[in-house]
Amino acid sequence: MARFGEIAAFALGSAVTAGLGWILRQRQRDRRVPILGGWPRVVIVGAGFGGLRVARGLAGVEADVLIVDRHNYHCFQPLLYQVATAALEPEEIAQPVRRILRGIPNVRFRMAEVEHIDAEHQQLLTADGPIPYDYLVLATGSMPNFFGLDTVATHAFGLKDLNQAVALRNHVLGCFERAVSEPDPERRAALLTFVVAGGGPTGVEYAGALAELIRLVLAHDYAGLDIKESRVILVEAGPTVLPTLAPSLQKAAIRSLSQKGVDVRTRAAVKGYDGETICLSDGSTIRTRTLVWAAGVRAVPLPSTPPLPTAPNGRIKVEPTLQVEGFPNIYAIGDLAQFDADGTPLPMVAPVAIQQGETVAENLRRQIAGQPLIRFVYRDRGSMATIGRNAAVAQLGRLRLTGFPAWVMWLLVHLVQLISFRNRMLVLINWTWDYFFYDRAVRLITRD
Amino acid sequence: MARFGEIAAFALGSAVTAGLGWILRQRQRDRRVPILGGWPRVVIVGAGFGGLRVARGLAGVEADVLIVDRHNYHCFQPLLYQVATAALEPEEIAQPVRRILRGIPNVRFRMAEVEHIDAEHQQLLTADGPIPYDYLVLATGSMPNFFGLDTVATHAFGLKDLNQAVALRNHVLGCFERAVSEPDPERRAALLTFVVAGGGPTGVEYAGALAELIRLVLAHDYAGLDIKESRVILVEAGPTVLPTLAPSLQKAAIRSLSQKGVDVRTRAAVKGYDGETICLSDGSTIRTRTLVWAAGVRAVPLPSTPPLPTAPNGRIKVEPTLQVEGFPNIYAIGDLAQFDADGTPLPMVAPVAIQQGETVAENLRRQIAGQPLIRFVYRDRGSMATIGRNAAVAQLGRLRLTGFPAWVMWLLVHLVQLISFRNRMLVLINWTWDYFFYDRAVRLITRD
Repeated sequence: MARFGEIAAFALGSAVTAGLGWILRQRQRDRRVPILGGWPRVVIVGAGFGGLRVARGLAGVEADVLIVDRHNYHCFQPLLYQVATAALEPEEIAQPVRRILRGIPNVRFRMAEVEHIDAEHQQLLTADGPIPYDYLVLATGSMPNFFGLDTVATHAFGLKDLNQAVALRNHVLGCFERAVSEPDPERRAALLTFVVAGGGPTGVEYAGALAELIRLVLAHDYAGLDIKESRVILVEAGPTVLPTLAPSLQKAAIRSLSQKGVDVRTRAAVKGYDGETICLSDGSTIRTRTLVWAAGVRAVPLPSTPPLPTAPNGRIKVEPTLQVEGFPNIYAIGDLAQFDADGTPLPMVAPVAIQQGETVAENLRRQIAGQPLIRFVYRDRGSMATIGRNAAVAQLGRLRLTGFPAWVMWLLVHLVQLISFRNRMLVLINWTWDYFFYDRAVRLITRD
Repeated sequence: MARFGEIAAFALGSAVTAGLGWILRQRQRDRRVPILGGWPRVVIVGAGFGGLRVARGLAGVEADVLIVDRHNYHCFQPLLYQVATAALEPEEIAQPVRRILRGIPNVRFRMAEVEHIDAEHQQLLTADGPIPYDYLVLATGSMPNFFGLDTVATHAFGLKDLNQAVALRNHVLGCFERAVSEPDPERRAALLTFVVAGGGPTGVEYAGALAELIRLVLAHDYAGLDIKESRVILVEAGPTVLPTLAPSLQKAAIRSLSQKGVDVRTRAAVKGYDGETICLSDGSTIRTRTLVWAAGVRAVPLPSTPPLPTAPNGRIKVEPTLQVEGFPNIYAIGDLAQFDADGTPLPMVAPVAIQQGETVAENLRRQIAGQPLIRFVYRDRGSMATIGRNAAVAQLGRLRLTGFPAWVMWLLVHLVQLISFRNRMLVLINWTWDYFFYDRAVRLITRD
């Protein structure tokens, strides 16, 4: 009977996909055009949210555009924490850059790591040789900021790219596998204790998802373990979590986290971690084999001659037009750019990068045509964070949502923003599956 | 309009998944039962096709069953070549062993690598300590056999597990990325030349899929490259490919491979490979950066005291009951076991492992109950290989299929055999997507 249901679902799914495939195919254009000489050469470094937006915004402009990234894919970073908690497959939140840009004849891609910016001779230095440019857009994003805590930098897990997310997934599952055959209670407790540093959206979302993975899924996988031995601790240096949201939403988030079994400790900063024991600023210690660092990011350093002007946090100082101060043919956007709005720098989040990418594409068009540039104005459309099943907080202008409505809105917003219909479909199936079956199907330890 | 279509498909897909989820959930049983003492202890080494079948066959038997594997997942090996050619995500053909065995209270899992069999004291030695057994089932499978060619072993890619498949995918895509910025024509040709050694099903399927990946997908991604510079060469030492099939099917396979652009060279064996140049037995050489080894497998060596009886190819000699010769409480199955049927050893394929697993589960039941054991009889249900879009060959008893019908049959047989409804659904979506869009969405270089 169930077998019949499966076959029926296959047939239906197949028919829907096929029909939709046919419709979407009509929209596909395969316009391969050789690169034309004589056009100004725009080089974009970084294929994240900002860099891609610039590249797409330059479609049809009379410019020879090259986008450079050290990976061959764009990664949808807001869902990295779901890869790290075995809810999504890493390939589902990544998309090959060449695939994304296929329909745009004047944009090419090169996989390379930029080692140095030679602003004097207008070229980038890479291991594969120099890349000349007329206009340069820097969109290399951010990396974890350990604030000089070297022991933490050595032993903590980051959550900024696909490899880090998969490494964290493998590590957490490996801790459970080792705990099963660990007779010493103290060492077993250290294996089953997971500490997340940082109460921003990444820390909150990861901690909530990890607590659910343990309580709803791993508890059944490891029937021989007493799952109460496992703890998830969220440590935040400030007085509360999600500092950019309204106090009522902060309280709702802490309540949701506690309900899901997360031990939230505010006003506690990590001072050191030797791989075995975390020292906190309040003098207490936690024995754990896992520290996930979501307590801060900094701009990725970009060596340059002459050096580009940077703020103390490493972000590059930009004009209101997003041109780097003193370098009229170099733009910087996203996490990398220090853009002051009313005296405070804009946050390092995807919407800033996307909107800045749009402005830079417009300004490049204008600069190439000899027209005056426009100033960037950030439109804050709000922010949200999910804590787990049926639980999220969202602040959209004056609208404040918690619980199930916020959670549904979070799902929809993230689903729509994913690149490629295929990824959206696969993510939706995974989410639906996990929701109904209390499952996390990707709990695989895939790398040695 | 297309956006509306997407939303409609989401709603429909979601409803179907939800409804189906509800139906399937009714079947789920969560029977957690503590392990009972006093029962004989059966240890199964290897969670492949054979080992899993034994574990499932022992459900409900009064035995304390432990299955041990060095990975925490079962991998559906017949589709590894699709992971290696960016058609499927690695997580889609893997399933956590704990998930598979959740409903079976007397079977547990331990992730560990067995280093030694201490048959004298009836225990397995692992890095985490010894595992005692009363009955032992060895199902550790096979690994690439380089027939003593050390240079090949050093530089060739295997295609026997998930990590190898992902490494090969990353390497092939990396060759194209490097070729784009390689000005020297000879070096570029070496980057774009891919040699597959071995004309068995794995070699044929991988070569066909790789040729399609290049011709249908990468040709559009790398518009700056002349795709005719790229070659896929299948080298086979014997006189033909797919030696176990009928001559008419062999010819059909070679014809299909040629149509897809694969250069098939029979009666040519690889003699050496230094990472740059392959030397063949006919005296010719091929400059390439990629050699994929599918020319032979051998049993995974298992050190034991006293040593188990092995054939020259490393396979363990077994009685007709699948007991290891001279070790009545140790069984060996699958690729690891040398079982002679009418004078020739059975092939190293999944159906043999599965059928042997069923027999071993039955014999363990009988042995524990003190009843006489049964002899293993292999039922050959035929074999098949796919060459790419709409092309496959299949031999099922007297039935011989080629082209589209064989291809559809191949798809159905493999889809049905995948473990878990979710994986079947995701694989089906990927296949449908790729078929209609001439796409391979997983062409990501994911590891450093």
